[in-house]
Amino acid sequence: MCFPYFPIKTPPHLLCTCHPCSFLPYTNPPFPPFLPSHTRPSIPSPCFALKSPSFSPMATVSPTPLLKDELDIVIPTIRNLDFLEMWRPFFQPYHLIIVQDGDPTKTIKVPEGFDYELYNRNDINRILGPKASCISFKDSACRCFGYMVSKKKYIYTIDDDCFVAKDPSGKDINALEQHIQNLLSPSTPFFFNTLYDPYRSGADFVRGYPFSLREGVPTAVSHGLWLNIPDYDAPTQLVKPLERNTRYVDAIMTIPKGTLFPMCGMNLAFNRELIGPAMYFGLMGDGQPIGRYDDMWAGWCTKVICDHLGWGVKTGLPYIWHSKASNPFVNLKKEYKGIYWQEELIPFFQSVALPKDCTTVQKCYIEISKQVKAKLGKVDDYFNKLADAMVTWIEAWDELNPSGDISAKIPNGASK
Amino acid sequence: MCFPYFPIKTPPHLLCTCHPCSFLPYTNPPFPPFLPSHTRPSIPSPCFALKSPSFSPMATVSPTPLLKDELDIVIPTIRNLDFLEMWRPFFQPYHLIIVQDGDPTKTIKVPEGFDYELYNRNDINRILGPKASCISFKDSACRCFGYMVSKKKYIYTIDDDCFVAKDPSGKDINALEQHIQNLLSPSTPFFFNTLYDPYRSGADFVRGYPFSLREGVPTAVSHGLWLNIPDYDAPTQLVKPLERNTRYVDAIMTIPKGTLFPMCGMNLAFNRELIGPAMYFGLMGDGQPIGRYDDMWAGWCTKVICDHLGWGVKTGLPYIWHSKASNPFVNLKKEYKGIYWQEELIPFFQSVALPKDCTTVQKCYIEISKQVKAKLGKVDDYFNKLADAMVTWIEAWDELNPSGDISAKIPNGASK
Repeated sequence: MCFPYFPIKTPPHLLCTCHPCSFLPYTNPPFPPFLPSHTRPSIPSPCFALKSPSFSPMATVSPTPLLKDELDIVIPTIRNLDFLEMWRPFFQPYHLIIVQDGDPTKTIKVPEGFDYELYNRNDINRILGPKASCISFKDSACRCFGYMVSKKKYIYTIDDDCFVAKDPSGKDINALEQHIQNLLSPSTPFFFNTLYDPYRSGADFVRGYPFSLREGVPTAVSHGLWLNIPDYDAPTQLVKPLERNTRYVDAIMTIPKGTLFPMCGMNLAFNRELIGPAMYFGLMGDGQPIGRYDDMWAGWCTKVICDHLGWGVKTGLPYIWHSKASNPFVNLKKEYKGIYWQEELIPFFQSVALPKDCTTVQKCYIEISKQVKAKLGKVDDYFNKLADAMVTWIEAWDELNPSGDISAKIPNGASK
Repeated sequence: MCFPYFPIKTPPHLLCTCHPCSFLPYTNPPFPPFLPSHTRPSIPSPCFALKSPSFSPMATVSPTPLLKDELDIVIPTIRNLDFLEMWRPFFQPYHLIIVQDGDPTKTIKVPEGFDYELYNRNDINRILGPKASCISFKDSACRCFGYMVSKKKYIYTIDDDCFVAKDPSGKDINALEQHIQNLLSPSTPFFFNTLYDPYRSGADFVRGYPFSLREGVPTAVSHGLWLNIPDYDAPTQLVKPLERNTRYVDAIMTIPKGTLFPMCGMNLAFNRELIGPAMYFGLMGDGQPIGRYDDMWAGWCTKVICDHLGWGVKTGLPYIWHSKASNPFVNLKKEYKGIYWQEELIPFFQSVALPKDCTTVQKCYIEISKQVKAKLGKVDDYFNKLADAMVTWIEAWDELNPSGDISAKIPNGASK
């Protein structure tokens, strides 16, 4: 009941029956209407708490973590993963896929007790052969290799400078659990609900929302946010070095169909079985003219494909605590081409039209790669290379995931 | 500085310089990264408070209320307006336009000290003559008459069962001030910003947001929300009689271009000079087969026109405290035709195409009325009548507001 994973409304016998709630809503107010609101009986916080998923008994005592055997956590890194200590209560039951970037001879230490497999550049080259060229090096874009080798239905990916945030009540936020809730409840891309996610406890569809759209559609992506250091570009970092995100917005919403958004890979979950082949993080970093557009690229491709195939993308909760901004001078160097290219990329993605016979993510993705070559190749030759890499990515994906069978045997990395 | 009415970012000398904020964002974390976040130095609440518009000294000591001479408050009612007592600190400096519905011989009492004009049905008939047929009777849709006779640039409209809500800190919410902030800062309908309104203090555009879109567009509509009784339709009211909205979502956002939403008239502000002629609340109530779709109709027409003319529609803050749900059995009777008609109305509005020569709101509105007649007339003859009333509304609007001169002399109501 506390986890509205499906579009099932709370049965009446499970509704809160505390005193303030038991006023019939269509009777006159049970108090003088001109009394200031702070002197009126308000719904006590336990009532709200009981109905909020984050306070559900399941969240603390559930013997089996949600989707324990159906979700991998993918972490790109170049350093020891001590940050996992903080995440231990939430991540330890899950399998980790660590994608080691940079020098493959370096040893990455993973705290005791975590179940993981780790891939370095040598592993990627060995597993993919010549197709390894589509996986970026010296850039966190390499994380998408982890999506490819996963055997699970769902992926959660997080950066190693992201810590556990707290909600306004001071409670540690189980980001993974919230992402799972987002992914397991439907999305509503065809019409905007002003009370945000209608499937959350305490919310619903408002007056004027067409009933035929209330079942929603499958959710493909859950995009989480960041307290403390916001995800700004280099120019904004330079102009506002002191800005911190301190605003906790208690909302999850579906990004409407036809609307593009800037997808950040720092705190991101998705249904790999649905949308995995579109989650390619492009060619970035070593040998490439651009960086820090890996997640953006994936987000734009993914959103266009989700819109075409009728799936939803959510953004909002959960927050992580982003501890450390990257160096804005370094970022500027990585971003500057992207900053003017994106002025052409956005209109491009806004006008991508996928034909009806693009009925799978792979077909959609190959079609987008063709349009990238045709329309963006003239912006810079980089986009011709990227279009080729997009095709290689799909070939590699299909090789490791034959016939869409995500549980198919795949080559091993350095498993623990 | 505290009121981000324009897309001007906080000058560096006004940025918070408290201790936690003064850490350079691109240095290593100034504390062991594996410390739980609750033991790390966090930004103290005064820092956030100082930067939040709601805590601005201007909010409490401003000698001249914002837009005092440029905004009218429109209230449709059938009863004495004692609810204004609670709003006195916020509303008293403004001019009220009261549209009395129902029996015109009844006297509506307005608390002392408010500056108002009041129109009853006799006034409406006298002022509009035969064109009064486009103004609904025995339905709060009559409020749009107030928009027509206003001489001001901005309108705020509120229902008389809406009281002052409190923010999570316990502070009374000045809903009007927040609406003004929403209207005076731009909107961003062409691309989604994951940190919500980028013009709010403490927020900005995130990485990947095209720079060419960061100036935004004029905001035409600010749609506020409701704590306590949510704005549900009759079936949802019946199924969830005990549900209260207790979730304060600290966000304002632009509803993307191409996305329709259910606009509620309970707590709504708009730029009358920009979008006024589209804010027609339709034919509802007495003699009509439908009710409770007045604001929805206005919202769908308005959104389509804003999208066409390049203006923004915001939703989110401010909240009011909605004290009393209307009777769901009565509502069901009013709504039931709308509940199945809306299944045709949404696809209709999603597919409305306005030609390029529709360069004014009036031209857009007349064009929509033609399409209503052509495409919805076959759903029910009601839509033929409505299409005619839409034309009458525009004729009446132009008569009272000649040459778009909103300060033109208009006939008097029963002014105080």
